[in-house]
Amino acid sequence: MITTVTLNAAIDKTYALDALRTGRVQRVRRVTAVPGGKGINAARVICQLGGDVVAAGVVGGYNGQFIAASLTAQGIPHELMTIEGESRICLNVLDDDGRSTELLEPGPVFPMERFGELVSLIGRLAGRSRIVVFSGSLPAGLPADTYARLTEAARQAGAAVFLDTSGAALAEGLRAKPDWIKPNAEEWEQLYGEGPLKDEEALVASLLRGAERFGVRIVVTLGADGALAAVCGELYRIRPPRIDAVNPVGSGDAFTAGLALASARGMRLVDGLRLATAAAAANALSPSAGHVRREDVERLLPLAAIERLA
Amino acid sequence: MITTVTLNAAIDKTYALDALRTGRVQRVRRVTAVPGGKGINAARVICQLGGDVVAAGVVGGYNGQFIAASLTAQGIPHELMTIEGESRICLNVLDDDGRSTELLEPGPVFPMERFGELVSLIGRLAGRSRIVVFSGSLPAGLPADTYARLTEAARQAGAAVFLDTSGAALAEGLRAKPDWIKPNAEEWEQLYGEGPLKDEEALVASLLRGAERFGVRIVVTLGADGALAAVCGELYRIRPPRIDAVNPVGSGDAFTAGLALASARGMRLVDGLRLATAAAAANALSPSAGHVRREDVERLLPLAAIERLA
Repeated sequence: MITTVTLNAAIDKTYALDALRTGRVQRVRRVTAVPGGKGINAARVICQLGGDVVAAGVVGGYNGQFIAASLTAQGIPHELMTIEGESRICLNVLDDDGRSTELLEPGPVFPMERFGELVSLIGRLAGRSRIVVFSGSLPAGLPADTYARLTEAARQAGAAVFLDTSGAALAEGLRAKPDWIKPNAEEWEQLYGEGPLKDEEALVASLLRGAERFGVRIVVTLGADGALAAVCGELYRIRPPRIDAVNPVGSGDAFTAGLALASARGMRLVDGLRLATAAAAANALSPSAGHVRREDVERLLPLAAIERLA
Repeated sequence: MITTVTLNAAIDKTYALDALRTGRVQRVRRVTAVPGGKGINAARVICQLGGDVVAAGVVGGYNGQFIAASLTAQGIPHELMTIEGESRICLNVLDDDGRSTELLEPGPVFPMERFGELVSLIGRLAGRSRIVVFSGSLPAGLPADTYARLTEAARQAGAAVFLDTSGAALAEGLRAKPDWIKPNAEEWEQLYGEGPLKDEEALVASLLRGAERFGVRIVVTLGADGALAAVCGELYRIRPPRIDAVNPVGSGDAFTAGLALASARGMRLVDGLRLATAAAAANALSPSAGHVRREDVERLLPLAAIERLA
């Protein structure tokens, strides 16, 4: 089993209207709302790929109830801890010409006096899981070392840990040496902390040094350009299949889902990177974030190229 | 008792941010959410003025549960019919410089096969009420003559009817001859249907003719300029107290609340118009829509001037 953890679960809501005009009263033509947050997206993709997954996380209020009910309706097993306040809404106002304006609510504040409950939940699920995936930002109220503490709890329970976050949560989380981290290029640059990496050569060098310095496996996703992975002193260049992308949002989460699923199934590293790449590309073919069709993944699998660099 | 009816109940949500910029990702600094819709606003003001009220209406989904729970928390008795779908959110994005961008969700579609249930609810509450107040727009799925049919149900049960709506819902609702209608100047002009009313003299003339033509009591609210009322061939000019308005949104609903409460208590017409005017002014002193402090209303009461025109 795989457990994904979304400490800052959300409702991803989209408003369709002709054009957002500031200072006016406007009627929204169509509203869609789905449970979101990076770990929930990853859980959905793992489900769609036939994997055994539980979406864990922290929610609040009626929005939290909506998230739980929607996960149930989508057939995604979940174990959510409920705190006070309303789970945040991430609102995407989408104009007819494709322009997107995003408004992100702050979300509820995690009450530190209940941190023990969270650790217990993660420990209990980790005990049944091969892999625990921690994804996304930390809600207000949780300290920057939260992922380090939860990584330790998951590992004590016998699970491997994937950490997909950024900023201080990633830098502090690294101290517990998760098995994998999956920053994008910008997040990696920030973590590596030696200024702009001017080309792929610089990026490759930083990855090899970083994997050694931090003692973790690293995969850096590069959007439509694929990814680079540094594992045990070796480096892999991953080139995705060429596709006509509809919506790349969530492709990073689909990548994590594929890699976690391959690891849980004991697949070889290159096959795991291939599955991750195909899942990320399949996600971009769907208008929904964190959503793949299994037949797309299967069709794209042989088209992903994994090259081991010298 | 007074029953207010909000067929298109909503959550009035406000996002505070420095400035709404289209095409960007922005973090919302503060979110507030309160139950809204014109009838719910009126019910809140009736409560705050010490009146006996039930807020009736139609809600859906988790947003509907939020509305019900918030009414309970605010001490407003309510009887809500739940339909499929999510109650709409009326989102006000408020920039620091006071600029407001409103995005109104469409809300759920009322299933006509359940119209009988709605009529029963209104009839049952009207049987315990002196006055039933119908406020606001009709949700999708309900025909334009809905307020006429509900007015008949309320009247058969022995209640007087206030109708505060606009457009086709008002024009069709009028056929059942509610006791009062309360359009604003623009809504009245549209209903009267003889083109722009160029000055107050034209407005006065249209009111006297309209009250006779439609066979109802009419009060036309004029924002900060007060109101005009046409009742049984007589005309009243209502001048509000001078105040430093903070937020006039909801003052029309507070006006309706004051007038309905005065009627339910058997107060004289001029005293009712005075209470309505003071409630509307007190609402404008509060940042929240549909919210008055009783001491403000009492202080403002003697400052409202009601003049009977010749």
